[in-house]
Amino acid sequence: MSDVQVIPPRSGVAFRLDKGQVLEVVDVEGCQVSDLLAFNAGDVREVVSNGRTFDYEETLKLTTGNTLWSNRSNPMLTITRDDVGCHDFLLTPCSEGTFRHFYPDEPVHRGCFGNLAEALEPYGVTEDAIPTAFNVFMNVPFDGTSGRISVEPPPSKKGDVLQLEAQMDCVIGLTACSAYASNGGSFKPIGWRIL
Amino acid sequence: MSDVQVIPPRSGVAFRLDKGQVLEVVDVEGCQVSDLLAFNAGDVREVVSNGRTFDYEETLKLTTGNTLWSNRSNPMLTITRDDVGCHDFLLTPCSEGTFRHFYPDEPVHRGCFGNLAEALEPYGVTEDAIPTAFNVFMNVPFDGTSGRISVEPPPSKKGDVLQLEAQMDCVIGLTACSAYASNGGSFKPIGWRIL
Repeated sequence: MSDVQVIPPRSGVAFRLDKGQVLEVVDVEGCQVSDLLAFNAGDVREVVSNGRTFDYEETLKLTTGNTLWSNRSNPMLTITRDDVGCHDFLLTPCSEGTFRHFYPDEPVHRGCFGNLAEALEPYGVTEDAIPTAFNVFMNVPFDGTSGRISVEPPPSKKGDVLQLEAQMDCVIGLTACSAYASNGGSFKPIGWRIL
Repeated sequence: MSDVQVIPPRSGVAFRLDKGQVLEVVDVEGCQVSDLLAFNAGDVREVVSNGRTFDYEETLKLTTGNTLWSNRSNPMLTITRDDVGCHDFLLTPCSEGTFRHFYPDEPVHRGCFGNLAEALEPYGVTEDAIPTAFNVFMNVPFDGTSGRISVEPPPSKKGDVLQLEAQMDCVIGLTACSAYASNGGSFKPIGWRIL
């Protein structure tokens, strides 16, 4: 078991996670979001897919026992521990476009999208190949009748973790989220380690 | 205004839709689904994105007045008429993997995914670049509390239409859906024309 690595506020990393290894994402201060992407380490054109996952898991709310599926219908990551039970797989990583759209009076930031693009570039992943991320601890309630969604502060507390077991050799992209709404307006780090 | 073109059951087409043109999708017999994709005609790496669309439109249920956004945060198609008010943007096109998963006792079909891949190949779109589609008339209720989803027969009636106005020059992929559940168990054609 490795020590917990800390992703500084508003930044991101990429690393390899081999089949059978477990990634633990840690909310080191509480109330923070981490955008997670997974690519097939042998061919990064295979990538985690919210549409395939919703279809095969038959739910929009993913927790212990659920699997994240790839665009090629292969299992990528299975959730093996979930202290929070609140994650989002509907929204794309925040980006320059997101900041201009939602925060026109704030400085533009490259967001999780830019952080993921830089971290994943050495693995051969291009910006346009970044899909909707699995947003760990992100709180996006939706209404079954109207369809309306909102972005609320995450309910995660200091030390809460999510564990995911790799079903194939993966390249993982992971951020400490940069958007104002997703973490209640303050920017905090995110921790991770491989078990 | 062109005549209505008919997509035979369990097949698909691709065609160009220029900025300002309106695509009309017609449910020619009723209770049928059509998977729709849109790519930037000038650079097919830019593609419609459910995650960006949910984020900017702030809803999972899209109807007249809503816009479908690209992965680069640009508007692609705006819904200008909607006779049905029931569409899905959560699920990926049915594929060989989908058929093996959900219908293990039925013959495997390449599905909307295979039909889109073949129709879009001349435009330079590869299989792995096919994202979650906008599924016209598809009926996927979701529960705001549990997150559970199901696939139900579409409420569309014979002659119902959806109209979308192009906000950029697009390549469109369009199918008559091949999955059992999405159309109530029978396979029917889909009509379309450019206004």
